[in-house]
Amino acid sequence: MKKPARMWGGRFEKAPAAEAEAYSVSLHFDSRLAPYDLAVSLAHSRALRKAGILTEKELRLIRRGLLAVEKDVRSGTADFVTGEEDIHSWVENRLREKVGEAADKLHTGRSRNDQVAQDLRLYLLDRVDEIRALLKELKDAVIDTAERYEGAIAAGHTHLQPAQPVLLAHHLLAYFEMFQRDSDRLRELRPRIAVLTLGSGALAGTSIPLDRRLLARELGLKELSANSMDAVSDRDFVVEFLSCASLVMIHLSRLSEELILWSHPALGWAEIGEEYCTGSSLMPQKRNPDMAELARGKTGRVTGSLAGVLTLLKGLPLTYNRDLQEDKEPVFDTADTILSSLRVMAPLMKGVAFRPDRLLETARAGYSFATDLAEFLALKGLPFRQAHAVVGKLVKWCGQGDVAPEDLTVADLQRFSPLFDSGSLKLLTAEASVRSKRGPGGTAPARVRAALKKARTRNS
Amino acid sequence: MKKPARMWGGRFEKAPAAEAEAYSVSLHFDSRLAPYDLAVSLAHSRALRKAGILTEKELRLIRRGLLAVEKDVRSGTADFVTGEEDIHSWVENRLREKVGEAADKLHTGRSRNDQVAQDLRLYLLDRVDEIRALLKELKDAVIDTAERYEGAIAAGHTHLQPAQPVLLAHHLLAYFEMFQRDSDRLRELRPRIAVLTLGSGALAGTSIPLDRRLLARELGLKELSANSMDAVSDRDFVVEFLSCASLVMIHLSRLSEELILWSHPALGWAEIGEEYCTGSSLMPQKRNPDMAELARGKTGRVTGSLAGVLTLLKGLPLTYNRDLQEDKEPVFDTADTILSSLRVMAPLMKGVAFRPDRLLETARAGYSFATDLAEFLALKGLPFRQAHAVVGKLVKWCGQGDVAPEDLTVADLQRFSPLFDSGSLKLLTAEASVRSKRGPGGTAPARVRAALKKARTRNS
Amino acid sequence: MKKPARMWGGRFEKAPAAEAEAYSVSLHFDSRLAPYDLAVSLAHSRALRKAGILTEKELRLIRRGLLAVEKDVRSGTADFVTGEEDIHSWVENRLREKVGEAADKLHTGRSRNDQVAQDLRLYLLDRVDEIRALLKELKDAVIDTAERYEGAIAAGHTHLQPAQPVLLAHHLLAYFEMFQRDSDRLRELRPRIAVLTLGSGALAGTSIPLDRRLLARELGLKELSANSMDAVSDRDFVVEFLSCASLVMIHLSRLSEELILWSHPALGWAEIGEEYCTGSSLMPQKRNPDMAELARGKTGRVTGSLAGVLTLLKGLPLTYNRDLQEDKEPVFDTADTILSSLRVMAPLMKGVAFRPDRLLETARAGYSFATDLAEFLALKGLPFRQAHAVVGKLVKWCGQGDVAPEDLTVADLQRFSPLFDSGSLKLLTAEASVRSKRGPGGTAPARVRAALKKARTRNS
Amino acid sequence: MKKPARMWGGRFEKAPAAEAEAYSVSLHFDSRLAPYDLAVSLAHSRALRKAGILTEKELRLIRRGLLAVEKDVRSGTADFVTGEEDIHSWVENRLREKVGEAADKLHTGRSRNDQVAQDLRLYLLDRVDEIRALLKELKDAVIDTAERYEGAIAAGHTHLQPAQPVLLAHHLLAYFEMFQRDSDRLRELRPRIAVLTLGSGALAGTSIPLDRRLLARELGLKELSANSMDAVSDRDFVVEFLSCASLVMIHLSRLSEELILWSHPALGWAEIGEEYCTGSSLMPQKRNPDMAELARGKTGRVTGSLAGVLTLLKGLPLTYNRDLQEDKEPVFDTADTILSSLRVMAPLMKGVAFRPDRLLETARAGYSFATDLAEFLALKGLPFRQAHAVVGKLVKWCGQGDVAPEDLTVADLQRFSPLFDSGSLKLLTAEASVRSKRGPGGTAPARVRAALKKARTRNS
Repeated sequence: MKKPARMWGGRFEKAPAAEAEAYSVSLHFDSRLAPYDLAVSLAHSRALRKAGILTEKELRLIRRGLLAVEKDVRSGTADFVTGEEDIHSWVENRLREKVGEAADKLHTGRSRNDQVAQDLRLYLLDRVDEIRALLKELKDAVIDTAERYEGAIAAGHTHLQPAQPVLLAHHLLAYFEMFQRDSDRLRELRPRIAVLTLGSGALAGTSIPLDRRLLARELGLKELSANSMDAVSDRDFVVEFLSCASLVMIHLSRLSEELILWSHPALGWAEIGEEYCTGSSLMPQKRNPDMAELARGKTGRVTGSLAGVLTLLKGLPLTYNRDLQEDKEPVFDTADTILSSLRVMAPLMKGVAFRPDRLLETARAGYSFATDLAEFLALKGLPFRQAHAVVGKLVKWCGQGDVAPEDLTVADLQRFSPLFDSGSLKLLTAEASVRSKRGPGGTAPARVRAALKKARTRNS
Repeated sequence: MKKPARMWGGRFEKAPAAEAEAYSVSLHFDSRLAPYDLAVSLAHSRALRKAGILTEKELRLIRRGLLAVEKDVRSGTADFVTGEEDIHSWVENRLREKVGEAADKLHTGRSRNDQVAQDLRLYLLDRVDEIRALLKELKDAVIDTAERYEGAIAAGHTHLQPAQPVLLAHHLLAYFEMFQRDSDRLRELRPRIAVLTLGSGALAGTSIPLDRRLLARELGLKELSANSMDAVSDRDFVVEFLSCASLVMIHLSRLSEELILWSHPALGWAEIGEEYCTGSSLMPQKRNPDMAELARGKTGRVTGSLAGVLTLLKGLPLTYNRDLQEDKEPVFDTADTILSSLRVMAPLMKGVAFRPDRLLETARAGYSFATDLAEFLALKGLPFRQAHAVVGKLVKWCGQGDVAPEDLTVADLQRFSPLFDSGSLKLLTAEASVRSKRGPGGTAPARVRAALKKARTRNS
Repeated sequence: MKKPARMWGGRFEKAPAAEAEAYSVSLHFDSRLAPYDLAVSLAHSRALRKAGILTEKELRLIRRGLLAVEKDVRSGTADFVTGEEDIHSWVENRLREKVGEAADKLHTGRSRNDQVAQDLRLYLLDRVDEIRALLKELKDAVIDTAERYEGAIAAGHTHLQPAQPVLLAHHLLAYFEMFQRDSDRLRELRPRIAVLTLGSGALAGTSIPLDRRLLARELGLKELSANSMDAVSDRDFVVEFLSCASLVMIHLSRLSEELILWSHPALGWAEIGEEYCTGSSLMPQKRNPDMAELARGKTGRVTGSLAGVLTLLKGLPLTYNRDLQEDKEPVFDTADTILSSLRVMAPLMKGVAFRPDRLLETARAGYSFATDLAEFLALKGLPFRQAHAVVGKLVKWCGQGDVAPEDLTVADLQRFSPLFDSGSLKLLTAEASVRSKRGPGGTAPARVRAALKKARTRNS
Repeated sequence: MKKPARMWGGRFEKAPAAEAEAYSVSLHFDSRLAPYDLAVSLAHSRALRKAGILTEKELRLIRRGLLAVEKDVRSGTADFVTGEEDIHSWVENRLREKVGEAADKLHTGRSRNDQVAQDLRLYLLDRVDEIRALLKELKDAVIDTAERYEGAIAAGHTHLQPAQPVLLAHHLLAYFEMFQRDSDRLRELRPRIAVLTLGSGALAGTSIPLDRRLLARELGLKELSANSMDAVSDRDFVVEFLSCASLVMIHLSRLSEELILWSHPALGWAEIGEEYCTGSSLMPQKRNPDMAELARGKTGRVTGSLAGVLTLLKGLPLTYNRDLQEDKEPVFDTADTILSSLRVMAPLMKGVAFRPDRLLETARAGYSFATDLAEFLALKGLPFRQAHAVVGKLVKWCGQGDVAPEDLTVADLQRFSPLFDSGSLKLLTAEASVRSKRGPGGTAPARVRAALKKARTRNS
């Protein structure tokens, strides 16, 4: 294959060494930016027309050419194995094939430095929107499942020890909150990505009178970068995206950990749909929660990319340095990882089958009523420190005698405090415990019902 | 020293092993939260009064006690080497020393889980404000220095090679943009930190009728956490803070790298004030830019903390797990690092002495006019690709003959393109180059003057 | 407090700014290096005597002084709040207080650059030895516990689903292997730390004729650094230590995760000794596996330090840069974390109480005999792929009819394959399953017994 | 395309959801393991023969089939877009195409868990060898270049400030030491990778009597894994490889930083060969050190992978979890990155052109003789602290009067100390300074000559 012309090289006498060329080529990954590079070039062509660089005829020719290339990209017939070093040369050379010499004017007043920053920003805006749409689906799945088991009571855990009974729906809605924050964060990030960098040239701006407002309008952007040197060096938006993405994965990893745990047959709290499980090549009986494990495992991939990009940026002098080429693969990989993870977790979550009987059984065991008894005594006027000690002794006594909560009598209770009365026995059920947490954010059924309704509204 | 009572232990028969106690104690670092734990307790006491847990007299007693403890903390007379396991027990025990048994009622309707989340949020709000104040000082220092050298022209670099002349002020304002983004990000983060978690109990809420709105008002917070299980498990705000902090350090590391480079005597572009340099214990002649090196080096510390907290959070099941105790030291260390770094970099930056003559010398060397010539040809109608090639040849010719830009004649230029005219020679100065970048964000003097003015306004 | 003299400053006219001094001081953390800085100075004094810099009398005086300082350090009476910027100045100034002007000769032929590298290497050698000693204790605890439950059968898991029965001892010995690798790795790292850097001066070596072999002998080191510039810049040994430490923590985190899981009352497989659990300030019934949670959480702290130091080192030009001061705190914190974690986990592990009945119950459930049946068929000549399918169908049939393994008859089995015979029923027990894994590394009792014995030998 | 049969599924009724299948497929990346999976299967077939599972005829058939598949892989005609989920199924299905039903017996006595661990270990052994071979080339290039400029004197830097003159060769040999350590580390890592995991089954071993010694011999391995549960869960060797790789990249990043710096035209110390530079699409005059920038930038990619894998491993319960599938891409990417970086840096380094005149100029400037004067005074008996102060004053005086070192007279020197004599003037040259560092590891020409010779020997 004959090498396509490089976009630079005027003063060079030697061709790049083969291994150097292989090392620096980015087309195999930045070909993903094709639609955005084309959009940028379409906008740029209008600005060049206004600047008098293109005639009306050249403009029409170039636009027709770019649209033809775009069509090839969209239809999947574009060939990216062409020897160009990056997507910018690729687009320009494809354009030249379509429209001839007019293509030579397109790179006026811009540099690959401002162009790639722009491409990446446009790429990310689309991914942010896609991720938010999938987060919405996942949140809907969480709400659906929570509603499906609205009355179910489970053991709420701290330290992975049963702590207090909660509504399963309340537990699931904790994940709604996490994914809602993820979505909100990405929404707030959007305007910090949606900045026009075109017009910054290589670093200093350009002497070609480009109308940057026009460029911004064409690309649907509101803000112009305020400083050309910053514009070509800035990758804050990449770090912010990776940080938001890391939090999405952290939340998925926590949900996954719980799904895996809940699926253990000795607990039997939940079952993941068979179509989201896999078997074993050796052990015929296995039914493994692989999707949840993969999501948990992929967390490291995303947080590792964040760590890597921060290392990459450390100590870079202004302005553009080739190191910055290394920002793209972590961004692409992260977007792919988040999107594929959400695509699986939303339907998986929607289909999880819980076993309310097993959940309740654990919620009832383990003296999880203890706090309620202590708070009962506190409401009766006993200082909480003392109430805590009283109930601690009661729990120890129950444990020694292997006394189940349902077998406790008022007399038993009163051995520990005269403040207990016949009403206290009603506290010894998971239902009563759940009902008593009436404050905003608490697990009382009425609160959770309202929270479900509100979640649905917030997610629509 | 007699061990103070633990806040738990009712059902326990054995005391913790010494090494386990040492392992789990947090007072040596979370004593920093004392002012916030006290504020939280003051607010909580009012809610307990309203809930009927405290009498008016107990409330007054407890408030007086808490304010007395606060005074000890503020005055530095508080003793934190007391054997308590954490700041919450410490405060309660100090209160008990001041007011006796009334202290036993304070821990009603709350858990250390919701309490520590609240303390940390309040701590961070203060740090965010302090960091933003110091960022403002640094931005002012950047603007001051940029104004001081308003006319100075420097070589703008890409790939650490001189690329095009820029105003030094334009270069410095790139840092203004970075620190402005840092400040804006922290401002947007603020409401996501300023959430009330009190009332969430250990995980499920509480049966004590606490008025959460009242609590929020007392603490100056607007939003209530929507889900108690999320409230005690959520550390998103910690990750967000560490991510914002990482970007601050990345920006400082880039500035530091440049300051170090500029201070090399063979370049001699800038000199850091002596009071921000150090010498050598062995080499008497040394004058080292240690502050900039330290700031650059401390970047790893902050990004490492971010990586560490993400690892910590991965796969944690709901709700509170003791792992979360490990969130505090990275937060404290990061806040300290950012604050101390900004405290040094702001005055250092204000005092940097640039050498405009040396800067201009480099800006003039290296054919940095090449792009301007190519853009000149493009404006004359030559397709840029060809203009780029023409100037590439001219540059090669200059290099071979060792022809300096100022010695070029019109005839020389016209050997490469007939489009050059006598006006072209004017392009061969750094001043003309800078002037020609007239677009918004460009380095033309008028643009930079306006940018400086606007920066000052944005920073006030 | 009057400021002690700085070790540099000859050419300086201005004192450091207060915030710059605060920023660069390291004494509050590098005071830990005091014993090593003193050992280095003791060795150095002998080399200076041999080089003719010190008289015999001066040598004796200086040694006496250094030993006196060492005594103060050892007894804890040394005062490190003295205003010196680092441990090197602190030692020198303390020496001056003890012996007067003779102290002025000690810093001949060395720089803080080679000195601090040496101090840190010596510090790490001691920590490596301590860590290995504690790893030995932990491995002993693992073996003890494995022996204590030698016959106990548990469900071996993949994907956190019961997979095949294993001996509990076999499971525990997997951790022996991990900690053994940790110990071996540290042993192999030792000689790469034990290198003499003294004699490298600031970067170039020294014109003082120091006998480096003598220095090495005095410090118990075998190898001399081969290149002075590398010697003062190299922190590979730090990264290697942090990497080894990260693996120790990863292993502890996996063990901790399992201990936490096993302690869930609904599983009830194991109970951590009460003296390694804590309770709740709110919930009187709680018994939380905090030590295991802390160990798991502290993993991020150590891996974050590794990530941070790598970021710090990236792109540093030769030789010493002040950034390198930032290597010490992560090293100290990591050593502390590993040591305190091992100190807790060894006795905790020794005291874990397993419940063999509960373990066996899970091992028996879930058709974990399936693989054994398939392998039985394979040994009878049925291709394994088909055997796997046959048993898959059998498992499905059992599941649909809720048939327990112990109720299966030969006739039932033969419905799925005529190769099954009356002997096949014997395969349906966990004991038979475990016995059949006879290969080296397998879980058969004889193998495990031998492995236990060998582990004890390897650990002694 | 019809879906190939899954290796599991017997008990499953529903097919995997499309997005779940897409999420869990690994063939697009683990196809790289094909040669190793085939080698493993070849070895395994012999063990199955010995275990009586295969007849001699089946063995021959299977071996012939595997070799045919291997040939397809080697020749590049193998088609990996076949719908299998991983390389293990792919190989088995290709084998079935070649030899029919006999293929059904191959998966006896093994699981994908022990198989993939083995594949990855074999893959890594090859990469370790390749990396060491390229490190050797790079070290040779470093030695070649050092020899080429044997007499050249440069400014040795600390804090990026000229500190003392050194031989350029001495500076370059510092990199020899780093890359030598990298190579040694990998050599020591080799036996920890070269462990046989086959025979561990899914986790417990196998009831098929596989001869593990035979398997090890066939695969050229010496050690058998000692515990089957550890064998399928252990990824220490992956972390160790990534840690070694991170250090290689750190060293390359430091070298790159220096190459970039040295190439700045205002310093002009070195020039990278044109075939390892690139130009600009906008600025015709540019000659950018892109290869060095890319190598520096790729550091983050490798250290990020290390951080990511550590996060992935944190808290995984035994034994195999699907999370572990995520270990492969970082390993592959890291191996590729290291190999491609070394492939470029070795020839680049060999061709760097230094400018000894410019180097010497900087070495002479900046009073870099100061330490030598101070050490001269120390050797004359003046305590070094005082000598340091004397020379500090001399340097300040020179600076105020702008006195160049070569203009200093004995009288000038004696104004500061009577110990100076006519011989002292000889110290004021870079050559004398370099010569005086005679100790082992120092920069004296004889030492460096010996070091070069020794480096060549160590590298052969």
